[in-house]
This record gives sequence, structure tokens and C-alpha cells, in this order.
Amino acid sequence: MTIVFYDLAGQDGRNFSPYCWRTRMALTHKGLDFEHRGTAFTAIAGVGGADYRTVPIIEDDGRMLGDSTLIAEHLEDNYPDRPSLFGGEAGRALCKFVHSWTNSVVHAGVAPLVLRDIYDHVCEEDRDYMRASREKIFGKTLESVQAGREDRLNRFRADLNPLRLTVRSQAFLGGEGATYADYIVFGAFQWARTISDFRILADDDPIFGWFQRCGELFDGLGHRAPGYY
Amino acid sequence: MTIVFYDLAGQDGRNFSPYCWRTRMALTHKGLDFEHRGTAFTAIAGVGGADYRTVPIIEDDGRMLGDSTLIAEHLEDNYPDRPSLFGGEAGRALCKFVHSWTNSVVHAGVAPLVLRDIYDHVCEEDRDYMRASREKIFGKTLESVQAGREDRLNRFRADLNPLRLTVRSQAFLGGEGATYADYIVFGAFQWARTISDFRILADDDPIFGWFQRCGELFDGLGHRAPGYY
Repeated sequence: MTIVFYDLAGQDGRNFSPYCWRTRMALTHKGLDFEHRGTAFTAIAGVGGADYRTVPIIEDDGRMLGDSTLIAEHLEDNYPDRPSLFGGEAGRALCKFVHSWTNSVVHAGVAPLVLRDIYDHVCEEDRDYMRASREKIFGKTLESVQAGREDRLNRFRADLNPLRLTVRSQAFLGGEGATYADYIVFGAFQWARTISDFRILADDDPIFGWFQRCGELFDGLGHRAPGYY
Repeated sequence: MTIVFYDLAGQDGRNFSPYCWRTRMALTHKGLDFEHRGTAFTAIAGVGGADYRTVPIIEDDGRMLGDSTLIAEHLEDNYPDRPSLFGGEAGRALCKFVHSWTNSVVHAGVAPLVLRDIYDHVCEEDRDYMRASREKIFGKTLESVQAGREDRLNRFRADLNPLRLTVRSQAFLGGEGATYADYIVFGAFQWARTISDFRILADDDPIFGWFQRCGELFDGLGHRAPGYY
């Protein structure tokens, strides 16, 4: 049975959610058929009710499941004959560290660099919600959060050193081939690429080379998606 | 044939090198017999000649090998029937990320917090070398580097969030059991514990709980080694 994948929808087919990109890459890595359904922020409640406040959500064989991490675990455990997302238990355990690093360092670093640009790309009906919810989190306007990003860029790039050192010596975090660890981090950079022309990575950064390699996977799934570079 | 392991020697049997701790834990994890030879900084040149400027160094079956990463790879590849250090290729690849993070964030954070304390614990004959070489790297005196460490502690602890979030939800980076990824990070905290009473981790920090779990492995190998807590 085809899996239904609820992804965050932006304007012009721009699917910018970093967590949804994790799921989209994971479904594709597993070679599973899925139906892609773009969903506005304010329409998520209509998908699975009050229990599901965020996307990604998948419906697999009549079961609804949210949270990108739980979805990855579900796919790995329920489709063991398909290519592995984690490469074994040690790989799965270390993914948790990559996840924690990505959320603490990459997401926390990317958000204030492109927050106002996200606003420009959310669906019309999501704009008030997006502004109000994010301004509450940051305690200031979207414009104030993003202001001065050029001055903060070098610090952000320096914080990425652990990733840079790794992908300078191997093609993917997962080694010669990409694993779910790569998709976790890829989602964060694809998020920025999808909604902002502000280049958070320099062209000659080994991380940009790795990002391009990830974007080329699966017939260019990441690259073909609408984005600024 | 028993492996010979050259470890950095400090005063009073304090083996403080973080890289040597990686190797010591790895040899023990593999259940290999080894002869432990403490070596002063200034005696390393006498072990393997000009090709080997740092420890750890091991001699295995007549072959001399330096660099903790190369040693771990060697042990994994040459003793495949022993407990795995990496848990497969994906685990091995992700270890590179843990290695890069540890060197960039943990070592770079720990060193300025305890640098003068290290000096107090190196072998008498190493003191001039240690002061001169480290003061050249940092561009100031050991005392100046360490001064004001209380004010820098919160920032250092915040930088450890990716590790904290991980070991809050699982016993080890490697999952239920420790893998080489754990030993990489453990070495950094064991380094500090061995030569300084300055508590870089709070007692109630989940990272301290994980550090204690690592120290208890192999009949308390880490805990039994001389240290301040």
C-alpha cells in the first residue's frame, strides 16, 4: 500500500521544512512508493487531529505516525529488506548524536540567518501564524532577528567545523554512501536553500560539496526541488 | 604476542593524554593483552625515532604504529573476532564525526580550562618542553591561558549540548554499550579529571553520569586510574 507523506507546503511548491526533508530522503532511500501531500502550517490540525501538531506525518498501512525520528525508526524496523537507513545498531545510536548536534548547532544557527526569508515563502494563509509564533519564540520581530546576519555568518560557519572536517575526508557522514545521519543534516541546509538566496555556505566550503552530493542523490531529488542555488 | 602500548606518563602514575586514553580503552574493549609503558613527552623520540612524535604508539607483532585513529582501525581490522569497536561500517564512518566534534569542541574547550594544571603534573623532565611548546601554541603564558576559567565555564558547558542531549536518552553514544565513539569523548574528560580538581562538569550533568558509566567499564579502568574525582 502506498504511504501517504504529509510535507509542509510553502509558496510555489517550496517544501522547506528541514524535518520533512529528513523523512522525504528516508522514504526515497528505502525505495518506498509514497504520495506527497503538501500541507500548510495551519492545515496540519486537519490531517491527524490534535495529536499531530507538526509535519512530517505519514500514513502507512492505515497507521498515522508523526515526528521525523519516529518515522525513520518505523521505516527501518518495518522495511528491513530495503536499504538500511542506519547501517546497524551502532549507526542508529550515533545518529542520535548527529540529530542532537544538528538541532543544537545547525538549526539554531540557520534560523536567525533566514527567518524573515521563510516568512516570504510560507503559504498566504500561514503568514500571520508564522509571524506570531516565531516572534513569540524569539522575543522580537522577524526583521530584527535576521538583521545583521552578515556579521554573524563567520561565527556560524566556524561552528560547523566538526561537519567540515568529516566531509573533507569522506564522501558522506555515513561513509561512502549516505545514511540517515546525512539526511538529518542535509535537511537543515536544504531548508535555507529553499527559501533564501543568502548563501550560508561558501562555494569552496567542503560542506557545500557534501550538500551538493546529497542533493544529487536519487536522481537529484534535492537539487530538482525549487530553491535558490 | 603481547602488544606494547606506549602511553604518556605524568607524575605519580597519572596518564593524562586524551588520545592515549582512547587507545587504552580500545585495547581493553578488544580484550587484548598489552604491556603498558609510561613515556615522558621528551622520551617519545626514543621510542620509535623521528617518525613518531606523539603517543599513543603501539607495537603489535613487531610492527610499530602511532596515531590513536590509525591504532583503532588497526585493532578493528586485525582482531575481527574480538568485540567490535565501531559496530560496522556506518558506525565507523560516524566515529569520524564524533572525532571531529571532540577535537574541535571538547579538546579546544578543555585545554584552556586546565592548561596550567597539566604543567603541574607532567614529569619533571618535561616541564620546560611543555611550557615552551604550549605557550608557543597559545601565544601567552600557561597562567594567562587558564586565568578566568570560572567565567568561561558556562559557555564551555553549553557547547556540550549535543553530547548532553544524546546521553540523556541513551546510556552511551554507541547505544546500550560503549563503542569507540564513547572512548574518543571519554578521553577528553578523563584528561581533565587526571590532572585538575577544577570541575568542568557539574555533578548533576547527564554528561557526568555518562562519564562515570564509562569510568566503570572494564572493572573501573578509568575510575581506578589516579585522578581528582
